[in-house]
Amino acid sequence: KMLGRALCTVLFVVVFPSLAEASQGHISVVLLGATGDLAKKYLWQGLFQLYMDQVSSGHSFTFHGAALAALEPGQRLMFDVLKKLSCPPDEAPNRCAVLKDQFLKLSQYHQLKTAENYTALNRDIETLLRQEGLQEAGRIFYFSVPPFAYTEIARHINSSCRPPPGAWLRVVLEKPFGHDLESAQEMAAELAGFFREDEMFRVDHYLGKQAVAHILPFRNQNRQFLDPIWNRHHVERVEVVLKETVDAKGRTSFYEQYGVIRDVLQNHLTEALMFLIMELPANVSSAQEVVQHKLQAFQSLWALERSSAVLGQYQAYDSQVQEELQEARGYVSTTPTFAGVLIRSDSLRWEGVPFLLTSGKALDERVGYARVLFKNRAYCTQSRTLRDAGHSQCKPKQIIFYFGHGALNTPAVLVSRNLFQPLMPKDSWKEAEARPDLHIFGQPLSDFYMYSPVKERDAYSVLISNIYHGRKDFFITTETLLASWAFWTPLLDSTSRQPPRLYPGGVENQQLLDFEMVTGGVAFTVAEPAELLSPSRQMPSDFRAIQSKFRHSPLVSAWAEDLISQLASDMEEAAVRSVARSGQFHLALSGGSSPVVLFQRLARHHYSFPWRQTHVWLVDERCVPLTDSESNFLSLHRHLLQSVRVPYFNIHPMPVHLNQRLCVEEDKGTELYARDIVALVANASFDLVLLGVGTDGHTASLFPHSENGLEGPPTVLLTESPVKPHQRMSLSLPLINRARQVFVLVLGKGKHDITALLSRVGHEPRKWPISGVSPSSGQLVWYVDYEALLG
Amino acid sequence: KMLGRALCTVLFVVVFPSLAEASQGHISVVLLGATGDLAKKYLWQGLFQLYMDQVSSGHSFTFHGAALAALEPGQRLMFDVLKKLSCPPDEAPNRCAVLKDQFLKLSQYHQLKTAENYTALNRDIETLLRQEGLQEAGRIFYFSVPPFAYTEIARHINSSCRPPPGAWLRVVLEKPFGHDLESAQEMAAELAGFFREDEMFRVDHYLGKQAVAHILPFRNQNRQFLDPIWNRHHVERVEVVLKETVDAKGRTSFYEQYGVIRDVLQNHLTEALMFLIMELPANVSSAQEVVQHKLQAFQSLWALERSSAVLGQYQAYDSQVQEELQEARGYVSTTPTFAGVLIRSDSLRWEGVPFLLTSGKALDERVGYARVLFKNRAYCTQSRTLRDAGHSQCKPKQIIFYFGHGALNTPAVLVSRNLFQPLMPKDSWKEAEARPDLHIFGQPLSDFYMYSPVKERDAYSVLISNIYHGRKDFFITTETLLASWAFWTPLLDSTSRQPPRLYPGGVENQQLLDFEMVTGGVAFTVAEPAELLSPSRQMPSDFRAIQSKFRHSPLVSAWAEDLISQLASDMEEAAVRSVARSGQFHLALSGGSSPVVLFQRLARHHYSFPWRQTHVWLVDERCVPLTDSESNFLSLHRHLLQSVRVPYFNIHPMPVHLNQRLCVEEDKGTELYARDIVALVANASFDLVLLGVGTDGHTASLFPHSENGLEGPPTVLLTESPVKPHQRMSLSLPLINRARQVFVLVLGKGKHDITALLSRVGHEPRKWPISGVSPSSGQLVWYVDYEALLG
Repeated sequence: KMLGRALCTVLFVVVFPSLAEASQGHISVVLLGATGDLAKKYLWQGLFQLYMDQVSSGHSFTFHGAALAALEPGQRLMFDVLKKLSCPPDEAPNRCAVLKDQFLKLSQYHQLKTAENYTALNRDIETLLRQEGLQEAGRIFYFSVPPFAYTEIARHINSSCRPPPGAWLRVVLEKPFGHDLESAQEMAAELAGFFREDEMFRVDHYLGKQAVAHILPFRNQNRQFLDPIWNRHHVERVEVVLKETVDAKGRTSFYEQYGVIRDVLQNHLTEALMFLIMELPANVSSAQEVVQHKLQAFQSLWALERSSAVLGQYQAYDSQVQEELQEARGYVSTTPTFAGVLIRSDSLRWEGVPFLLTSGKALDERVGYARVLFKNRAYCTQSRTLRDAGHSQCKPKQIIFYFGHGALNTPAVLVSRNLFQPLMPKDSWKEAEARPDLHIFGQPLSDFYMYSPVKERDAYSVLISNIYHGRKDFFITTETLLASWAFWTPLLDSTSRQPPRLYPGGVENQQLLDFEMVTGGVAFTVAEPAELLSPSRQMPSDFRAIQSKFRHSPLVSAWAEDLISQLASDMEEAAVRSVARSGQFHLALSGGSSPVVLFQRLARHHYSFPWRQTHVWLVDERCVPLTDSESNFLSLHRHLLQSVRVPYFNIHPMPVHLNQRLCVEEDKGTELYARDIVALVANASFDLVLLGVGTDGHTASLFPHSENGLEGPPTVLLTESPVKPHQRMSLSLPLINRARQVFVLVLGKGKHDITALLSRVGHEPRKWPISGVSPSSGQLVWYVDYEALLG
Repeated sequence: KMLGRALCTVLFVVVFPSLAEASQGHISVVLLGATGDLAKKYLWQGLFQLYMDQVSSGHSFTFHGAALAALEPGQRLMFDVLKKLSCPPDEAPNRCAVLKDQFLKLSQYHQLKTAENYTALNRDIETLLRQEGLQEAGRIFYFSVPPFAYTEIARHINSSCRPPPGAWLRVVLEKPFGHDLESAQEMAAELAGFFREDEMFRVDHYLGKQAVAHILPFRNQNRQFLDPIWNRHHVERVEVVLKETVDAKGRTSFYEQYGVIRDVLQNHLTEALMFLIMELPANVSSAQEVVQHKLQAFQSLWALERSSAVLGQYQAYDSQVQEELQEARGYVSTTPTFAGVLIRSDSLRWEGVPFLLTSGKALDERVGYARVLFKNRAYCTQSRTLRDAGHSQCKPKQIIFYFGHGALNTPAVLVSRNLFQPLMPKDSWKEAEARPDLHIFGQPLSDFYMYSPVKERDAYSVLISNIYHGRKDFFITTETLLASWAFWTPLLDSTSRQPPRLYPGGVENQQLLDFEMVTGGVAFTVAEPAELLSPSRQMPSDFRAIQSKFRHSPLVSAWAEDLISQLASDMEEAAVRSVARSGQFHLALSGGSSPVVLFQRLARHHYSFPWRQTHVWLVDERCVPLTDSESNFLSLHRHLLQSVRVPYFNIHPMPVHLNQRLCVEEDKGTELYARDIVALVANASFDLVLLGVGTDGHTASLFPHSENGLEGPPTVLLTESPVKPHQRMSLSLPLINRARQVFVLVLGKGKHDITALLSRVGHEPRKWPISGVSPSSGQLVWYVDYEALLG
């Protein structure tokens, strides 16, 4: 304590002769994990940089290193680090030496282990402030500790170290922020018990990289050029790439838990992508607007599926894991060290534009960039030799935010000269010198306007400066963190069983990791060479569709994703056949959750489906307005109809909402629908009816223990559901059984019991309405996934 | 006559020893214009080839050259041509010499000028057949004469030269087939008075070019490879190109009437494009199926607009015209000698894929090709140098049908090796030899599988063979001809006033003719250099929008196309503003023909229009079913709604069709609509109402001389139109006048009188309902085009 006071006195004498007037207040910076790797490598240097930059700002500072170690050894370790702090090349050596001396004197080590330690730290700060007659401006707590320690530390800070009213608290958190959506939610909930959202600064150091941090300002400053071209009409693809040459050796205990997607894609590459694709906020430095737009961008992304990614693992990884984690010789890790992921948006701006995120270890070069490649929209009338001269419109056009390393070995912003000459802030970015020897993405550097930072700054010093300035737009908020995990978790789940492709590493990878966009996702371009396959990698033939019989009708069975894709193909085939026969396709669809994936698949993978000739009918509907989130029609609309071109007239929602009221008998909605069917569908025989099965054996909205709609004329009727909303409208069983084809889709473990039951029972529609489905002259096919079939 | 008989006798003795049994019947070929350029250059050689190929087919032949010249000079001229017929290199010289001798003996000259001449020709043929005891198989009349002579000749053939029942008649017609849609229709109607459709063979010699003729067979034989990629998801663009180095010198009298679009694009390039883009018929050699699919492809094309094309004219053209056509020194031709045209389809297969058709004279090289360029769907993980090795998926992928000339100097089919190895018919196409020095489209030839014809055949000999075989799929039918003119005529009309860009010719063109796709069409890439502009090319400042007042409200005026584009932009701005304010945009649209162009523009050029937040209402509707071609809603649906993403719930057609009947008072459609408006539109105040004006001063469906709907509460009502269909539903004037903005669109000369009248009269809604439009607290803007404003 005496040391601290003495230091401060020295400082104030030297730097702030009349401190009491000049001071904007005092800032205490507490670095938790002060002697760890990150602190050694980046954080102390960043804090020193902050001090150099802000020494004349009117704020006074003290820096508190903290760790679990006792005072004496901790002190020694910390000051060993501090002594090695370097002066930046653009700083006058004399000034820097003086400042470094002051910085050392303002810095102090604390053991922070017990509740008492925290109380003591707080007391130290208070005492110092009182003794020096200083106003307190705020406190920064930088958590450079493993996440399992967060809760404990957060609790202590919250209970013992909050600054008095009027001064702010900023806690800085380092990733990993959870392991998937659930763990991230838990962690966020815990932290929310201790800190307000505005007090938390979650670091993604990519947001401090100069090329990444400049994406939004670039888009803003160049609106006039970008507005017309920053959309699906002009952009061919967006790539965000981080290639590493190093492997995971020495870090496998961490890596084995995370893998490349959690380590790099979920955070760094996603953040860079968001800056590129979000709608541009009116004010790009408003953290709130940026967050709002980022969240909207997340909303617009298609859900990732297993086929959205290709995964790889360098060959030596397994043996490194075995060695470092003391695993047995036969241990096989499926942790990916390479991933290529295709992301798509359904926003009007980006619909159809592929976003490719790629990262890997043990690749042929170290480089990172975000690249927007524009379509070639020109026709060059001259023969090839002539057209390559100058800055022809037929040359590739791109904008590249170059993170660093690689051929350029500097952060940079590059814009093809045949696009436009960008506006750049002169004080922070300068035009780069010509390097006639260099090529980038196959073009000479002279084809680009290229800018590099006037002063290259380490990401951490940028971020520390932004913490000081309270610039929350440089940090991850709880909302965006959870949005990102919500986006990535399904892919992590669906690929967790999947063995990654093995690759030798370095240039020997050849074209083994090249991948391409195929229907529904991405796939490696070349087949996996047999010699790279270790025998343990053989998977059971999980994905072969079983063709057999169920209840005397054809059965198609497979894992859910493959089943859906088969069903969608079969539906398209039925549609094409029907249109060829009659010029129309009358399709009746069920509500519920199972068909959603099917609808999405139809919307996204079946462009040659004859939608214009298709009439879409509902099998059943809940008695709610069509725009109610419970409405079957709304779900159908959201997941299918809004993406395909079914003519307005061919869409037939059930008239559950007439005369401003729901399913009132006298409004005759059922008759209306039945009349429409008779008027439009030949013989009231739908070409295809898609059904589901409830765990109670219901189908359509025909529930057990009711005679209604099981027999009699083909009709539409109102029914009662045992679950809310109770009122339903449904096609009757006789109407369903007039169809040319009926497909029944059954998905998931939850349906195993009813599936098993149905395999045994006969025709008992009163008990299990689904057992009454038996097209009188049509065909019935069961689509049951392995989970429902096998449990 | 004696000559003919003598010749035939000789022939039959030599070639058909036992003719009476072997003969499949006799074919008489009559070549009209037997001594003209085309006949000299291609047709006689083609007929000789036919004879060589079919001499053993069982058919016997005679060949009748005909022209206006008298017998003696005509005979001499014709036999001078025949003597020069050459033997193809793959024919044994001995056999060829014998056959040529026979061919000469079977050929005969006729003067065909008067009706008697035709009767005589017919008698000659009949006599010959009778004398030789031959069955008649058919007669071919090849019209190698200017089109103005067609009618006369056709009349004579029809009345005097038809073969007897059981034998066929084939008349072969050479382009030009009209000058625009109207003239083509006239000519088609005239010909239809003389010949049945199946008797007419309209020649487009591009259909006989081997690379063009092979497009459909190629697509058919390679279905397995092409099916997954022959669509908008994989194809980046399609180019059909014919570049010539020659200019029009010596042919300006023809060229000045036609220009490059009529000469090359409307026929040759369009045909090649159709083969590429049509849905593949199940049977590609069924002429009927091909025609059906070709017509469907035409239907799917967007209408061409002025901005769909860039036009050029080589600099020397004007002086050539002045010299050859004896025009005055100051004469300025606007006939284009270069055109680049962007064509788009709205089929599900091709939506968004640009088709670029380009042709020009006086360019830097002579070459013709149709090229399908595929998207790059691969991500190559290796750095550039590694990825260029081998047949990487990152190299360009294309399929090229090479018509001839250019670097290859042979017809060819080329397929990138990273696509697939195509199946080709071994008897007609062979793999081409390696030519390591050659590059095509910037790639070494070794990047392609390349095939060239086993036997290179002239287009005319291919076509003549197909006439003989009755293969109508190699010819233009009346339907496809008119479909093509219907497609091209609007562009020809809209560009007829437009001065083409001048270009120097040859390599000096530099990048002057490069063009690129811009919003709404194509534009030259580089600005026109001032020195190339002759002063006479200056146009009046036609296209500047006039901003002023009309009836005390703001007036926007311009030529129709610019006016529509301004209106569409203003609507988008209103929509964006409204969504920012209230989260919604309530837009009420009028029916009629004027808004169609507006709807199309909104659908195609305004991707950032907030459609998802937009509610679309109708200003008025005709009492017909929504799917009736008279329905305002159908037109709105067809031209706008089916192309944009307005949610189903936000679309509000007027309920004119309830309980299976139209606009019956007691069905309360008007109340229903009014209630919907009140429920959804705040304060029943539409954000924007778009109106038109009738020549009688009506607006919405509020017609002169009726009190209905002019005053009173804001409501929806049934009205009576003076024209059919009489019954209408309409918003009332008070409801319209509650809107925040009302835009009135007035287009065309036909509206000049009412526009002039309205500029003078006051508020007299009983006489002119439009004069009652006066938003109580909103804004009214008039959009009136120059034709309506200035007459």
